[in-house]
Amino acid sequence: MIIVLRPDATKKQTDHLVAKIKELGLKPWISKGVERTIIGVIGEEDIIRVQPLEVFPGVEKVLAILKPYKLASRDFKKENTIVDLGSGVKVGGQRLVVMAGPCSVEKEKLLIEIAKKVKKAGATVLRGGAFKPRTSPYAFQGLGLEGLKYLAKARAETGLKVVTELMDLRDIDMVVKYADMIQVGARNMQNFNLLKEVGKTKKPILLKRGMANTVKEFLMSAEYVLSEGNFNIVLCERGIRTFEDSTRFTFDTSAIPMVKNLSHLPIIADPSHATGKWGLVGPCAKASIAAGADGLIIEVHPKPEEAFSDGEQSLLPENFAKMMGEVRKVAEAVGREI
Amino acid sequence: MIIVLRPDATKKQTDHLVAKIKELGLKPWISKGVERTIIGVIGEEDIIRVQPLEVFPGVEKVLAILKPYKLASRDFKKENTIVDLGSGVKVGGQRLVVMAGPCSVEKEKLLIEIAKKVKKAGATVLRGGAFKPRTSPYAFQGLGLEGLKYLAKARAETGLKVVTELMDLRDIDMVVKYADMIQVGARNMQNFNLLKEVGKTKKPILLKRGMANTVKEFLMSAEYVLSEGNFNIVLCERGIRTFEDSTRFTFDTSAIPMVKNLSHLPIIADPSHATGKWGLVGPCAKASIAAGADGLIIEVHPKPEEAFSDGEQSLLPENFAKMMGEVRKVAEAVGREI
Amino acid sequence: MIIVLRPDATKKQTDHLVAKIKELGLKPWISKGVERTIIGVIGEEDIIRVQPLEVFPGVEKVLAILKPYKLASRDFKKENTIVDLGSGVKVGGQRLVVMAGPCSVEKEKLLIEIAKKVKKAGATVLRGGAFKPRTSPYAFQGLGLEGLKYLAKARAETGLKVVTELMDLRDIDMVVKYADMIQVGARNMQNFNLLKEVGKTKKPILLKRGMANTVKEFLMSAEYVLSEGNFNIVLCERGIRTFEDSTRFTFDTSAIPMVKNLSHLPIIADPSHATGKWGLVGPCAKASIAAGADGLIIEVHPKPEEAFSDGEQSLLPENFAKMMGEVRKVAEAVGREI
Amino acid sequence: MIIVLRPDATKKQTDHLVAKIKELGLKPWISKGVERTIIGVIGEEDIIRVQPLEVFPGVEKVLAILKPYKLASRDFKKENTIVDLGSGVKVGGQRLVVMAGPCSVEKEKLLIEIAKKVKKAGATVLRGGAFKPRTSPYAFQGLGLEGLKYLAKARAETGLKVVTELMDLRDIDMVVKYADMIQVGARNMQNFNLLKEVGKTKKPILLKRGMANTVKEFLMSAEYVLSEGNFNIVLCERGIRTFEDSTRFTFDTSAIPMVKNLSHLPIIADPSHATGKWGLVGPCAKASIAAGADGLIIEVHPKPEEAFSDGEQSLLPENFAKMMGEVRKVAEAVGREI
Repeated sequence: MIIVLRPDATKKQTDHLVAKIKELGLKPWISKGVERTIIGVIGEEDIIRVQPLEVFPGVEKVLAILKPYKLASRDFKKENTIVDLGSGVKVGGQRLVVMAGPCSVEKEKLLIEIAKKVKKAGATVLRGGAFKPRTSPYAFQGLGLEGLKYLAKARAETGLKVVTELMDLRDIDMVVKYADMIQVGARNMQNFNLLKEVGKTKKPILLKRGMANTVKEFLMSAEYVLSEGNFNIVLCERGIRTFEDSTRFTFDTSAIPMVKNLSHLPIIADPSHATGKWGLVGPCAKASIAAGADGLIIEVHPKPEEAFSDGEQSLLPENFAKMMGEVRKVAEAVGREI
Repeated sequence: MIIVLRPDATKKQTDHLVAKIKELGLKPWISKGVERTIIGVIGEEDIIRVQPLEVFPGVEKVLAILKPYKLASRDFKKENTIVDLGSGVKVGGQRLVVMAGPCSVEKEKLLIEIAKKVKKAGATVLRGGAFKPRTSPYAFQGLGLEGLKYLAKARAETGLKVVTELMDLRDIDMVVKYADMIQVGARNMQNFNLLKEVGKTKKPILLKRGMANTVKEFLMSAEYVLSEGNFNIVLCERGIRTFEDSTRFTFDTSAIPMVKNLSHLPIIADPSHATGKWGLVGPCAKASIAAGADGLIIEVHPKPEEAFSDGEQSLLPENFAKMMGEVRKVAEAVGREI
Repeated sequence: MIIVLRPDATKKQTDHLVAKIKELGLKPWISKGVERTIIGVIGEEDIIRVQPLEVFPGVEKVLAILKPYKLASRDFKKENTIVDLGSGVKVGGQRLVVMAGPCSVEKEKLLIEIAKKVKKAGATVLRGGAFKPRTSPYAFQGLGLEGLKYLAKARAETGLKVVTELMDLRDIDMVVKYADMIQVGARNMQNFNLLKEVGKTKKPILLKRGMANTVKEFLMSAEYVLSEGNFNIVLCERGIRTFEDSTRFTFDTSAIPMVKNLSHLPIIADPSHATGKWGLVGPCAKASIAAGADGLIIEVHPKPEEAFSDGEQSLLPENFAKMMGEVRKVAEAVGREI
Repeated sequence: MIIVLRPDATKKQTDHLVAKIKELGLKPWISKGVERTIIGVIGEEDIIRVQPLEVFPGVEKVLAILKPYKLASRDFKKENTIVDLGSGVKVGGQRLVVMAGPCSVEKEKLLIEIAKKVKKAGATVLRGGAFKPRTSPYAFQGLGLEGLKYLAKARAETGLKVVTELMDLRDIDMVVKYADMIQVGARNMQNFNLLKEVGKTKKPILLKRGMANTVKEFLMSAEYVLSEGNFNIVLCERGIRTFEDSTRFTFDTSAIPMVKNLSHLPIIADPSHATGKWGLVGPCAKASIAAGADGLIIEVHPKPEEAFSDGEQSLLPENFAKMMGEVRKVAEAVGREI
């Protein structure tokens, strides 16, 4: 922690600050520059991070030096984390994982039909929402428990693993029972109580980046799950909110190599939600893999016209299969496989 | 709803779309322009809003005409809603409401001291977090039930009303019991289940705008609460996320008159969280009132250096009193009073 | 300047960096913390600011301590700068300045009519574009020299001062000849050659904030003008680009007190361009003054339906007069006058 | 153009609007819905686009149907445009183009050394700034004419084509004389006079996206150049400004396929400026090609520590060569070659 004093800071103010730092068991070092005095703080930065040092009289600004997350950091763990979903499906290794399925679970037969098709094309995880966060209270809100059961049936028939979103802590036992991986959606990335509870489950977690959250905050949210002892986290870049209005969100490709540099956790990409347009899903899926993503999560629906949600961004199964062929080539070009 | 067809849309595609519209019980009207054919849809727009019309072959884009919210709209209710917190404290009328207090509830004695001071300066509602959403799992998370009890004591001693945040549905009964007004924080603005449950309580709700949410989405979230029959909603502008990094968020002053135009619900401003700097709180508080806000929510702490959270943006009680004097003059200049 | 080394930085890397700092005539001080080594640099920060220190092997990050602007800073000049437009019109003092007029200069008679009306309502400066930056090459681009002449006539008839935009350096002599104040538009805030040339003129400059520029960059652009010896700069907040789409831009009210803290230069507000909706101009004008702005620039047009540009955000003269009455009250409430 | 009337629009207001539309030589059609009346306008949308219809009494909103650009649109020209830089270097075909070189031209010998190295690695165009847009007036501003001459020498020695930025119209003849391609930088994307003048030159133009501009505005700026008869435009995605602060800008990968859908113009990517960190350049370069970009522009410097600008984002020649090897594989995976 570096504390920069104002040009007009008095000796009394400086002494007051130095005393406070020592009181916290830390060691201050003082450097008087031409224009400013600077106080460095040596010791556990976490102790002082939560102190509002900027309100001390005479302080101009406070600069943090260390990262605010620990367990999520690559400094903490050098080698890549590999998250095991069981039955040989692993995220973070040389083999990419592809999760695919409808936005929301609608009908049992339809879900199984989609599951078979995406499996055939190379997906190993089935996605589908039983609980749906919708901006309008009048829109379809998901089938709930019924939807979870359909997902379980689709798993039984195909051998695919199942990932589904948990929105409400009251549903956690249900979701833990039926899903192989719990998705924490973008709107819940900073629902800290939810993060703590899924941390306690030890289930694999798919943590989506919030639409207004920085990479640093993304890793801080992972830290919540990690701090409960759950290291089975897969991060997911799904677009951030910007002024650009030709896409639903702006897909932040550079977040993928950035996360890889900063953290040991695997990261996949969701080009369906990021772009909101099915015609852009393929190009962005290929871009993600080229940038180093460990996998993809893609919306697939055989009749997007009749989908209960997000039809605009769903691929037809045949387009999904075609995309998989293209993604496979890019994967090989960067030394990965599907 | 207006559907714009692609220049190369075929007759078959057009017929398919028209058939679908009729199937939904709506009436299409077709207009062939020089360059495009356009289909208008007459009838309940809500029926068709949830249909993914953009995926129909031949469709270029779909333009919504009506607002997606109803109950929150000024079309639905012309006159301003006034939310009654009891004991004569009302939000939305000619008299402004000022909510003030510490970011988080820390110690009983300190809280009561602050409560007395903010009351003396003109506040009628005490704010204070018993449950705190913190980006770091290692930061102070709030006192929970203990904090709620302190708030109740401060109310008993001062007569101030109490507003506090609900973060977790498991705590709803507790918060309903102790608070006069339930705050839904910015990070929960799209926690739809939470919105529905607070809607069922019929308690006054303080709904804060999400940091990445548009005014339209803000009103959609209010619609969730309204659709459960709870019309006691006070909206709160608290800054949005932008590229500007000299303030914590960017305070969107224009959202205040915009909400006033679009909705009958009252709206207050939170310049403390919006700016993140105590030196900017006063100017932005005055700006809010000048722009038509129905009140303010302000962080006040007698020893910001020792606050457990957000000390940088807290006003000293004496600065709060000074600000109130200034705000009072601006209020009078726009025909309001405190 | 503070340089934070990586945990694994070698002695050789550290020595290399220290040698470089000494080579620049600066003094390094080294502090070895528990987890990191930090090197502080004492001396003229400007010398080292342009060095890409982050690329030195072993460096993790570089933190600037001093502000990158000097002449624009309040550290450089404590008292407020007052810009004198002549004939008693001054910006930055206790009296507010109001600039008003049409977006673009269209017809001589109409311009004079508007000029008379805005003067009567209290404006002292006439605004109007002779050169118009338009996103479409097919839109009206301004009358050029003819427009400048109309402005001069309006000045002769009313005594109002004239502010108009300079877009192209080839027009600088013309604009200097006819205008009392040269506007540098938002799209040219980082047209550095233009800034240097208007700096050389010594004319009063109205520098508008770029739609994607931070307050720091805003002051850096002012620094370009100042560094040519022209201290007659009035800054103008006119909205920044964000995800919010119900307004044309997001009016950043907090930039006003922020600039006042950081700089001695006066700042006015342009609620017409910031909001893009005439119904929001009044509330945001009042908010600006309440937040401490030194004045306003407002679009006024008697027949917005027939305006060649930006009719949506123009006030009718009668609405402008009404707004002025309201703004006057707010001005008095904050100790200013119009 | 679709005009939505307010629920309370009167017959007189409607008639006034209809009369205005007819006066413009267009044909209105009126549709009375359950809640609103809607007026469609048939005919040349451009005629009415510049009319401020939103200010007519009774109008709620105006929805554009057609794109505001014509010549840039794929509707106007179906097949991809291929821009020919001479000597067999073409942009937009099956073969990708790679432009590489230092941020700014510094020393003749160094420039030639870099040119030889990037050529060897597969680049066919040399980039380098003779005029540099710098946020600080105290930073290196480029060598000007001297720099242009160095570029010409490097071309003579290596056979590489030369692209360099034009910042000031007063330098246009010089730049036209020495460069094979004129770069219009991000800060000048909406410098409309500059766009018109480079349009008149007929030289190949490299038009970079503004940091706060939408894809639609990007194409509108291309329209300015096209409308002067210059169809030799290569677009360049270089990152947009967002709240994310771990990278310099947010690289908008999805803009690449979006532009490909909307326009016939080629588009390349600049991952150096987009990310601002050399460690992210390679992953984002690969992502761009996977997403369909027609080429890359990359900063390369043998001694980033001593670069006069942007050293942080420059690749060492050996890292550039390595990146080229990786990019080549991705290019082949998507059916392209370098």
